[in-house]
Amino acid sequence: MEQTFSYNRLYNFVKAVFTGMGCNETDASTATKALIAADIRGIDSHGVARLSGYVRLWEAKRINATPEIQIVHETPSTAVVDGDAGLGLVVAPFAMQVAIEKAKNVGTGWVSVRNSNHFGIAGYHAMMALEHDMIGIAMTNASALVAPTFSIERMLGTNPIAVAIPAGDQPPFVADMATTTASNGKLEILQRKNAVAPIGWVQDQSGESTTDAGILKNGGVMLPLGSDRDHGSHKGYALGSIVDIFSAVLSGASYGPWAPPFPAYVPIPENMPGKGLGHFFGAMRIDAFRTADEFKEHMDNWITRFRNAKTSPNQERVLIPGDPEREMEAIRTKEGIPLLKSAIDDLTQTGIRFNVIL
Amino acid sequence: MEQTFSYNRLYNFVKAVFTGMGCNETDASTATKALIAADIRGIDSHGVARLSGYVRLWEAKRINATPEIQIVHETPSTAVVDGDAGLGLVVAPFAMQVAIEKAKNVGTGWVSVRNSNHFGIAGYHAMMALEHDMIGIAMTNASALVAPTFSIERMLGTNPIAVAIPAGDQPPFVADMATTTASNGKLEILQRKNAVAPIGWVQDQSGESTTDAGILKNGGVMLPLGSDRDHGSHKGYALGSIVDIFSAVLSGASYGPWAPPFPAYVPIPENMPGKGLGHFFGAMRIDAFRTADEFKEHMDNWITRFRNAKTSPNQERVLIPGDPEREMEAIRTKEGIPLLKSAIDDLTQTGIRFNVIL
Repeated sequence: MEQTFSYNRLYNFVKAVFTGMGCNETDASTATKALIAADIRGIDSHGVARLSGYVRLWEAKRINATPEIQIVHETPSTAVVDGDAGLGLVVAPFAMQVAIEKAKNVGTGWVSVRNSNHFGIAGYHAMMALEHDMIGIAMTNASALVAPTFSIERMLGTNPIAVAIPAGDQPPFVADMATTTASNGKLEILQRKNAVAPIGWVQDQSGESTTDAGILKNGGVMLPLGSDRDHGSHKGYALGSIVDIFSAVLSGASYGPWAPPFPAYVPIPENMPGKGLGHFFGAMRIDAFRTADEFKEHMDNWITRFRNAKTSPNQERVLIPGDPEREMEAIRTKEGIPLLKSAIDDLTQTGIRFNVIL
Repeated sequence: MEQTFSYNRLYNFVKAVFTGMGCNETDASTATKALIAADIRGIDSHGVARLSGYVRLWEAKRINATPEIQIVHETPSTAVVDGDAGLGLVVAPFAMQVAIEKAKNVGTGWVSVRNSNHFGIAGYHAMMALEHDMIGIAMTNASALVAPTFSIERMLGTNPIAVAIPAGDQPPFVADMATTTASNGKLEILQRKNAVAPIGWVQDQSGESTTDAGILKNGGVMLPLGSDRDHGSHKGYALGSIVDIFSAVLSGASYGPWAPPFPAYVPIPENMPGKGLGHFFGAMRIDAFRTADEFKEHMDNWITRFRNAKTSPNQERVLIPGDPEREMEAIRTKEGIPLLKSAIDDLTQTGIRFNVIL
């Protein structure tokens, strides 16, 4: 049971909801673009399906619709931004823009953010660098769902890393990945289908492997990229930790198991060591290293060579990071964004709250 | 069959070999410290076991013992360094020092390196930042042994990433990881023992999973962290690609399948798109974000909390990245470095070449 919506129809609806929350015109527009970037690129778990979650956080006064976002400390190549509990969808583009401006001045810019909230998909923010002939980097910590190697306790979020790299004639290289074996969105899809998860995605509360895609509701945890020690889970654990430290320990946000939860009904952890969620952004000007033309020529060569690598049996092609999302964006821009009935009902209810019709 | 050597005995021997190759006093000392850092930290595959390999590359005129290492382009926060085909063990500390100096001036420093060679363990270079109250980052591309997801072709090296983060009372957080499921060193250990590899480490030349730890000799490939698509190998592939692009496309080194091979008997690939191997280094001054004291206090809290996370059944403790290597360093500093007979024979032969006795 799906229905398809044009980008513009969703855009107008979501923007009206953010405006209803009290966001000014500019912020509502910024947040809407960041949110729907997930739907248009096929990452359905992070787009309009989360709109009601943001609204509930606002109702619980955990999101401030009229934040005064500020740079609280800076050097020529760095800054710490305080998001004033604003929507991450607004705070993140602000902070990424600061990184880009610093890169214009001194070659690179690096911004750690505290007192923010969930920012949608990391890739959207990293990609802001591309039009400036810069490499963009974005990461964020998140509510704890992931156990370190040898542990059964939820200590880290899915803590994604995105890196966007410009090319010439070829489309850009855009990696955007949770530092877990599988994203939470993929688990949700399996649950809706009543399907099982591959071994290595999750474990139950006693630390046993399980294929139960719904195990997170029963004290289970997600596993770091690598799944188990033999397959390198200590590397996924290290990557998730680095994201947590760069995003939250460097900025003064809450880290590890103290990261504030996304569901508004989950109480905020006690004795939080910092303010809100943390993000980390980077921008590197290509011509701070070599001319952009030279670099892009070699990126085209790199991409073409990898695209033409010999395929495994039964595989049609070798993908470049960013290919699936870009191809989905082309389709959905033309054909619209399909939403499940449950998502449509959820949006409709959210609309009623603000007198907005989907 | 093992024999144990003190750090000083190995240091004097290795330094004499590098001096015999024509390195000046300073470079020989720098290279020796970087190389033996692997042995003392327990990463036996990357230490003195590789000395004869470096010598053979020098004999084949692929390593220049008297390089003029130069900054060829720079901005306040970035530089490109040309290693003049020098030992990576000398070029890398030079470039990392450039990153540190830039961080002193503008908060962070980022250095991409071309025309270099293998640099030992990435963690050693990243850790140079610690004494300056900086976060250190080091990565390098390497000879192609790894197939992208859906491919059977060797396109990437094991391309490690190291991140070193200072703490206060706690020891520093030091992650140092190949972007593959397992390192090549671990495969070598299994081969010596005639043991099989876990499924997910390697595949044969037709793209089938195999437990044959020696499959690389028969056209097999290593697998990116994640092992297969279902378990996130596209993320390991993306990480290895990012290392390749930051290290080699940004600097003008050879990338992907064109990265120069470590074994001197393997011919250099034709039509190389750049010069030598590439590395990438970063240094971020902690107080470019918040005071070092505040940061370290929170890092101590982070580390303590993770160390005390609930363990899985049959596990004694949750480790912090860097724990195993630091504990090994403490043991080997006291008790010496054990070497296998094959490694001792290899060193002895290398010594004869330069009239140096082990």
